[in-house]
Amino acid sequence: MEPIKIFAIAGALRAGSFNRKLLKVAVEKAKGASVDFADLKEFDLPLYDGDLEAQGLPPGVVRLKERIAAADGLLIATPEYNWSIPGTFKNAIDWASRPPSNPFRGKTALIMAASPGQFGGMRSLLALRQVFVTLGLFTIPQQVTVSFADNAFDESGQLIDPKLDAQLQKAVEAFISVTSALKNRN
Amino acid sequence: MEPIKIFAIAGALRAGSFNRKLLKVAVEKAKGASVDFADLKEFDLPLYDGDLEAQGLPPGVVRLKERIAAADGLLIATPEYNWSIPGTFKNAIDWASRPPSNPFRGKTALIMAASPGQFGGMRSLLALRQVFVTLGLFTIPQQVTVSFADNAFDESGQLIDPKLDAQLQKAVEAFISVTSALKNRN
Amino acid sequence: MEPIKIFAIAGALRAGSFNRKLLKVAVEKAKGASVDFADLKEFDLPLYDGDLEAQGLPPGVVRLKERIAAADGLLIATPEYNWSIPGTFKNAIDWASRPPSNPFRGKTALIMAASPGQFGGMRSLLALRQVFVTLGLFTIPQQVTVSFADNAFDESGQLIDPKLDAQLQKAVEAFISVTSALKNRN
Amino acid sequence: MEPIKIFAIAGALRAGSFNRKLLKVAVEKAKGASVDFADLKEFDLPLYDGDLEAQGLPPGVVRLKERIAAADGLLIATPEYNWSIPGTFKNAIDWASRPPSNPFRGKTALIMAASPGQFGGMRSLLALRQVFVTLGLFTIPQQVTVSFADNAFDESGQLIDPKLDAQLQKAVEAFISVTSALKNRN
Repeated sequence: MEPIKIFAIAGALRAGSFNRKLLKVAVEKAKGASVDFADLKEFDLPLYDGDLEAQGLPPGVVRLKERIAAADGLLIATPEYNWSIPGTFKNAIDWASRPPSNPFRGKTALIMAASPGQFGGMRSLLALRQVFVTLGLFTIPQQVTVSFADNAFDESGQLIDPKLDAQLQKAVEAFISVTSALKNRN
Repeated sequence: MEPIKIFAIAGALRAGSFNRKLLKVAVEKAKGASVDFADLKEFDLPLYDGDLEAQGLPPGVVRLKERIAAADGLLIATPEYNWSIPGTFKNAIDWASRPPSNPFRGKTALIMAASPGQFGGMRSLLALRQVFVTLGLFTIPQQVTVSFADNAFDESGQLIDPKLDAQLQKAVEAFISVTSALKNRN
Repeated sequence: MEPIKIFAIAGALRAGSFNRKLLKVAVEKAKGASVDFADLKEFDLPLYDGDLEAQGLPPGVVRLKERIAAADGLLIATPEYNWSIPGTFKNAIDWASRPPSNPFRGKTALIMAASPGQFGGMRSLLALRQVFVTLGLFTIPQQVTVSFADNAFDESGQLIDPKLDAQLQKAVEAFISVTSALKNRN
Repeated sequence: MEPIKIFAIAGALRAGSFNRKLLKVAVEKAKGASVDFADLKEFDLPLYDGDLEAQGLPPGVVRLKERIAAADGLLIATPEYNWSIPGTFKNAIDWASRPPSNPFRGKTALIMAASPGQFGGMRSLLALRQVFVTLGLFTIPQQVTVSFADNAFDESGQLIDPKLDAQLQKAVEAFISVTSALKNRN
């Protein structure tokens, strides 16, 4: 049985993003999976504009769609801006969903969030789940929110709270189990 | 391989409920599955009250929890009241989720809604999905909303619109496929 | 100028409810307003059932509708059950919204939540806001969530955290100011 | 009494946007108000990036913040992308909310949506309301959704459906009434 393929991306452009840190910890726990760890920045996406799209999909959009299409499941870590998905990240999702194909359909997703505040990006995840329904993603119920994210990681980038780390471990295991079961079903 | 077990319930007490009709159509399409078709009324649930719970779970709650626990997946059709889940149905969910056990965890769900209005219960489904996340349900992205439900069924109880019927067929098939894959994973 | 009238209710039946405590603190801050402090229990509401409604509104529903109709604004404190509005409370809202009249329309609302968990009922408030839109309520953006509610109140029922208490004070003042402005507009 | 000032903007960049059409119809109904009709394109916003922000707010962001700050209320028409706010528009909101000041706080908003589909952007409005809560906006409960927007406007740009037009008229009147009452309160 070939290993499942995961596309991992954080919904932020900032180099020191807490969510990229969180994503790295999650990826380390995805033993046995083949992970494509992307940086949102590398796709150099413009803001979505129907008039721009009419001239053809920008090259970064084409690459983003291909990378998503190649995966069995998505590992996502997103900031929360104003109680919802960052516009920057939603813009990437909007572009990736454009015709001729929906690369999200039928794949699984594990969603996570880190934020400096008390709610740990919870509201961003609630908003993201709604978006992922129409994209046809199986977003598993397990999710991880990291509150007070500026103090949540140690110098080596690991989660300081062992309970949170164990929760992430279990979430990643559930994600891999479900992704594998859905990939290999008849 | 034993057939999957489905617990089917509509989130309304009214005898002529559109959602019970919709649920019946869905159940007919669940070929090969073993379906426990419940009526919310038969559990005779009181309104949730922490003081009442302290005296022990009411017998209807115990029965509801057992019937859910026995299933691999849930087939749900719910009305929309005031842009959300009916209190009547949410009350049943709240009771069923109470300790000592969460019978929902790890099961799959297909959610549907019928309403007399233009939006077909869409907002009730969005609200229900959020609830099902914390219950640990794998709610599949496929869903069905039936708008103008008072004119959506023929005299034999079938959906008049063939496109909608085909969409329901596909949703039920996806539900069975996912439920089966998750039940039989290693 | 006559004082504004407030209908205050907590969305729980339990006698020791944290939300009733929170509501009391809020009511004490509503200086100069005339407050009708209700107990959800006194309306003795059945579960909503369209067949029951067809026999006439239950007396408790009629009383609840009248008490809401008499107010200029609503002061609400609600628990969170399963990431949403308690079924018990949603049931009361569903009944109160039934014809012949919508007593909520055009009134203001301040919504609050207390919960034993980290998120303080935030998700219940998000869900409640959506419901209040279709009811025609002006729910002010200020809101208060009390996390770890089992340790949030002192023996006299006051909020222990002075920052939270000040936030509640400001929210109540904004609520009274907006309610008064909307009541007295031409 | 000076007229209220309205900042009107559609959440799309496309020149032929249905939402800009809808916004124009709404603005025509805002008799007696002073309207600043903006085009999202004129601010030439980059995608939000914390590292970019650290170098100072882009000039378009500064202008957008000033134009919002000068208004008493916001008139918004937004598309729905993937059951939520377009990334393009959310990005504008995210930038405008950045320090040193929140120009949204205390203002009113009327939100509208037009979409080619059956749901008329309803889910985008639900998502937008949540964002507007944390920004401190009084989003009035009245809202307008235009379904099947590609056939909703006549050649002169008016809404073909007289019922929908009347609903928009009432919503704009409520918006002006509330905005005026809140602006002129003591």
